[in-house]
Amino acid sequence: MRLRNKPWAKEKIEQYPQYVVTAPEELKGKWNTVYEANQPLHIEIGTGKGRFITEMAKANPSINYLGVELQESVIVSALDRLIEAEVPNVKLLNANAVNLPQYFAKGEVSRVYLNFSDPWPKTRHEKRRLTYKSFLKIYEDILPEHGEIHFKTDNQGLFEYSLTSFSAYGMLLKYVSLDLHNSLFEGNIMTEYEEKFSEKGNRIYRCEAQFQKKG
Amino acid sequence: MRLRNKPWAKEKIEQYPQYVVTAPEELKGKWNTVYEANQPLHIEIGTGKGRFITEMAKANPSINYLGVELQESVIVSALDRLIEAEVPNVKLLNANAVNLPQYFAKGEVSRVYLNFSDPWPKTRHEKRRLTYKSFLKIYEDILPEHGEIHFKTDNQGLFEYSLTSFSAYGMLLKYVSLDLHNSLFEGNIMTEYEEKFSEKGNRIYRCEAQFQKKG
Ligand SMILES: C[S@@+](CC[C@H](N)C(=O)[O-])C[C@H]1O[C@@H](n2cnc3c(N)ncnc32)[C@H](O)[C@@H]1O
Ligand SMILES: C[S@@+](CC[C@H](N)C(=O)[O-])C[C@H]1O[C@@H](n2cnc3c(N)ncnc32)[C@H](O)[C@@H]1O
Repeated sequence: MRLRNKPWAKEKIEQYPQYVVTAPEELKGKWNTVYEANQPLHIEIGTGKGRFITEMAKANPSINYLGVELQESVIVSALDRLIEAEVPNVKLLNANAVNLPQYFAKGEVSRVYLNFSDPWPKTRHEKRRLTYKSFLKIYEDILPEHGEIHFKTDNQGLFEYSLTSFSAYGMLLKYVSLDLHNSLFEGNIMTEYEEKFSEKGNRIYRCEAQFQKKG
Repeated sequence: MRLRNKPWAKEKIEQYPQYVVTAPEELKGKWNTVYEANQPLHIEIGTGKGRFITEMAKANPSINYLGVELQESVIVSALDRLIEAEVPNVKLLNANAVNLPQYFAKGEVSRVYLNFSDPWPKTRHEKRRLTYKSFLKIYEDILPEHGEIHFKTDNQGLFEYSLTSFSAYGMLLKYVSLDLHNSLFEGNIMTEYEEKFSEKGNRIYRCEAQFQKKG
């Protein structure tokens, strides 16, 4: 995500606590108090400008959604979208994924979405990839026992890496598409990056990986 | 593999027992007696016209190779290639993969290659795919505990299916390439189908899947 300097971003985020959750550590175990309805919570990590999470919320009113985004200068665009959309079942969180276990109790998150995560192609940056084993541990900590990660990317190297990383972690690959936009998958909601890169002619890869009981 | 009617094929195969192994059930536990050197045995299932297995044998003299092919009318082409090549560490077997556990003791085969296996795209034909779970059981029966399957195909549907099938069987995905010919993989030896389909512009997919200890 290209970053523009937006000195006013932090202030704006703080003005909308009804959209961008504050003090997430105090919500551990009680995230359902944040939403109108007590229903499953799906989170997207690296939500960017928020199109995916907002459209998913509109399409699935019986799920609560949370878009987690590290960058203030990016999450403000998602905030604008939420203000516009007026959907009760979606919120944002300005946070780093590494801190999620401080914010969520085990099983409090029902599904994790990763969309077009930064590829970090150099081997020496492997640990920064959101599908590196230390991140999988973080997702496992907040998901229920057979929780799932749904992952999309156009980046071939990141997708190859992630399949082997999920497998090495003992996860089950439940679904793999090597060309999502020409597949039978229904109800796909495009992210900002997905639209941009598929217009360029890139294939979109998608998979669903499920945590398994540790034996 | 398009089949031409070759009534003389069976007879020709029988004339070359030094290349096309006969009575494989009598070799169970003693396949090394078939080859000059007592060294690991790698088999290719559905070897077709035999280019891959012959070239692999030339490139890796310290491995014994066996090409398993169901169709007499196809294996005769592989036989011609072997007669020509005069390599001591490669043989053929005219057999159906389903019978392999009758021919090999557990661990007698060190690696299984599957190249451009018939895709059987219809769901009702799933059981015929060489990466269906009943076939994985067969390979597991003849490989050692952490034995590997090395699989190549240009068929997107079969590759997607096979990744999930390997995973559902509890296998570890050690390597995945979604574009073999533009990858860093070294020493690739092309099969007849690989040459044909890559010339058409198809991408070649490749993976290595390893059996895991049963918990
Ligand atoms: C390439 S963008 C993709 C945005 C969006 N998902 C899409 O598909 O359009 C990746 C986003 O992930 C965010 N990100 C990267 N690492 C993160 C982390 N550790 N925690 C939260 N967000 C992160 C980045 O700030 C960036 O906005
Ligand atoms: C599509 S061709 C590929 C040939 C070769 N591997 C290549 O890449 O050029 C598949 C081959 O697998 C063989 N085959 C299919 N099912 C088999 C089985 N159950 N046992 C042995 N061979 C089989 C077919 O006869 C055919 O020759």
